[in-house]
Amino acid sequence: MSSSPESTPGRSPAAVTVIGLGPMGRALAGAFVDAGVRTTVWNRTPGRDRELVERGAIGAASAAEAVAASPLTVVSLVNYDATDAVLRQDAVTAALKGRTLVNLTADTPDRARDTGRWAGEHGIRYLDGAVMTPTPTIGTPHAVLLLSGDEELYGENRDVLGALGGTHTHLGEDIGRAAAYDIALLDVFWTSMTGYMHALALARAEGVSPRELAPFAQGIGAILPALFQETAEDIEDGGYSGEGNPLTSAVSTMAHVVHAAEAHGIDTGVMRAAEGLARRTVALGHGADGFSRIAEVLTRR
Amino acid sequence: MSSSPESTPGRSPAAVTVIGLGPMGRALAGAFVDAGVRTTVWNRTPGRDRELVERGAIGAASAAEAVAASPLTVVSLVNYDATDAVLRQDAVTAALKGRTLVNLTADTPDRARDTGRWAGEHGIRYLDGAVMTPTPTIGTPHAVLLLSGDEELYGENRDVLGALGGTHTHLGEDIGRAAAYDIALLDVFWTSMTGYMHALALARAEGVSPRELAPFAQGIGAILPALFQETAEDIEDGGYSGEGNPLTSAVSTMAHVVHAAEAHGIDTGVMRAAEGLARRTVALGHGADGFSRIAEVLTRR
Repeated sequence: MSSSPESTPGRSPAAVTVIGLGPMGRALAGAFVDAGVRTTVWNRTPGRDRELVERGAIGAASAAEAVAASPLTVVSLVNYDATDAVLRQDAVTAALKGRTLVNLTADTPDRARDTGRWAGEHGIRYLDGAVMTPTPTIGTPHAVLLLSGDEELYGENRDVLGALGGTHTHLGEDIGRAAAYDIALLDVFWTSMTGYMHALALARAEGVSPRELAPFAQGIGAILPALFQETAEDIEDGGYSGEGNPLTSAVSTMAHVVHAAEAHGIDTGVMRAAEGLARRTVALGHGADGFSRIAEVLTRR
Repeated sequence: MSSSPESTPGRSPAAVTVIGLGPMGRALAGAFVDAGVRTTVWNRTPGRDRELVERGAIGAASAAEAVAASPLTVVSLVNYDATDAVLRQDAVTAALKGRTLVNLTADTPDRARDTGRWAGEHGIRYLDGAVMTPTPTIGTPHAVLLLSGDEELYGENRDVLGALGGTHTHLGEDIGRAAAYDIALLDVFWTSMTGYMHALALARAEGVSPRELAPFAQGIGAILPALFQETAEDIEDGGYSGEGNPLTSAVSTMAHVVHAAEAHGIDTGVMRAAEGLARRTVALGHGADGFSRIAEVLTRR
């Protein structure tokens, strides 16, 4: 692969452009500025660059101008519809030719692969990525970034992306892989957070305040990482062990949650859907198996 | 309050009866046996007591005989329908009179309160409780037990219940309180686990194996406890801050999960229900608020 005009493999390019200045885009651009990288910024809605420009960033007048200013463009928009609307304008696509695009916008793996095809057709060097941690972590050791795409291209840009802080993992050459991890992890995260919102509402209806419940909820949260690991191994090895905690018991306690919430007029859609999956798995003859059997049943076509 | 026939406040009763020998009941009875407490056991389906009897437990011929053998009876059944079917037989109710009943069966707070009323009417000293940790923790420092009901009665039985190991928290005099915490915590737990099952299925459809996803899922799990605490404080203080992560962004990423799963023919009921709650909250004018606003909206009547 050829290197981009202003970078050599293993050395940071002198400059980066950040497209999209929502909370995450601003955090990314701010981290580049703080690391002393020449940072050009652009956002469709004007005015969002004010604070960054005060800190030393360069505000571009158009997306094409922004992209032309740096060998590397990092994009952080709400989704790939927004990304396409900006990048697939002729002037922007032309300006990206021979340059490197790192798209940290979250969307589905299919959209990442589609963008990969488009980039290939237009001579754009492309990495797809996902930021797994909230904006305050950017530029700190707590940031977690996932990237996928060409290994050598990743190597060339690792140093400058290092300004974003934290742990960066290159997940392989399949351009959709970072989005696949991202989507699966967002699945766990938002489902868990929704469960917690529901639990807080249910507790409050029972006279238990959020601060009273929180230490015990933290206890539940604390057992999840080890359980996530064990369950993954159990599923990959095809064990589905229900020893000590069969799916039938889980279904029974899930039903208690639904009944208690209904008694207070609290929406039970999420738990009813979860209970439905568990009951379907029991109905398929897996009542003595562990909860992990649900993952296998979900993948059946 | 009078103390039970064979116990003095502050001293362990010499004996305990365990009703219900499912996985949890057997673990509870085993911990009492191991602690040197005279343990009588009974289960509706015979034969479940064999291993416990070999270890030194006494197998009773009937529930009434079991209850009559000890000043304290601990019950662990699948739900309160099962509990009522055993305890509300005349001979058993009569045998419980003046004795202490600790019901560790999981069900709704209303069922616990109903059992409290029944116990009061029959002169049965009653504590309700919940075991928050899986069977292997019982009798170890990792067990977590929640109890509610009369404070003095709890004090009298604390020592013998201590044989079950771990942390015991008395949540107050409202007999339904342990069940309220239990149900709210099961809500978080099973919703999170269902989200993880779904994430594993989605990842696998994208060519990412359970063992590949697990370390990253552990990372998500690891951030939950602190987030649970922050969110609880935010809700109790009425902040609902969306700074850096407004509900509109969450809705957008939740939709990506739904689309990615649907593209693989994977059931999306849980995430669609979660997304629906979030969208309803946005529609009520809270799109710029944080995810925590969902808990408040759920409690509106």
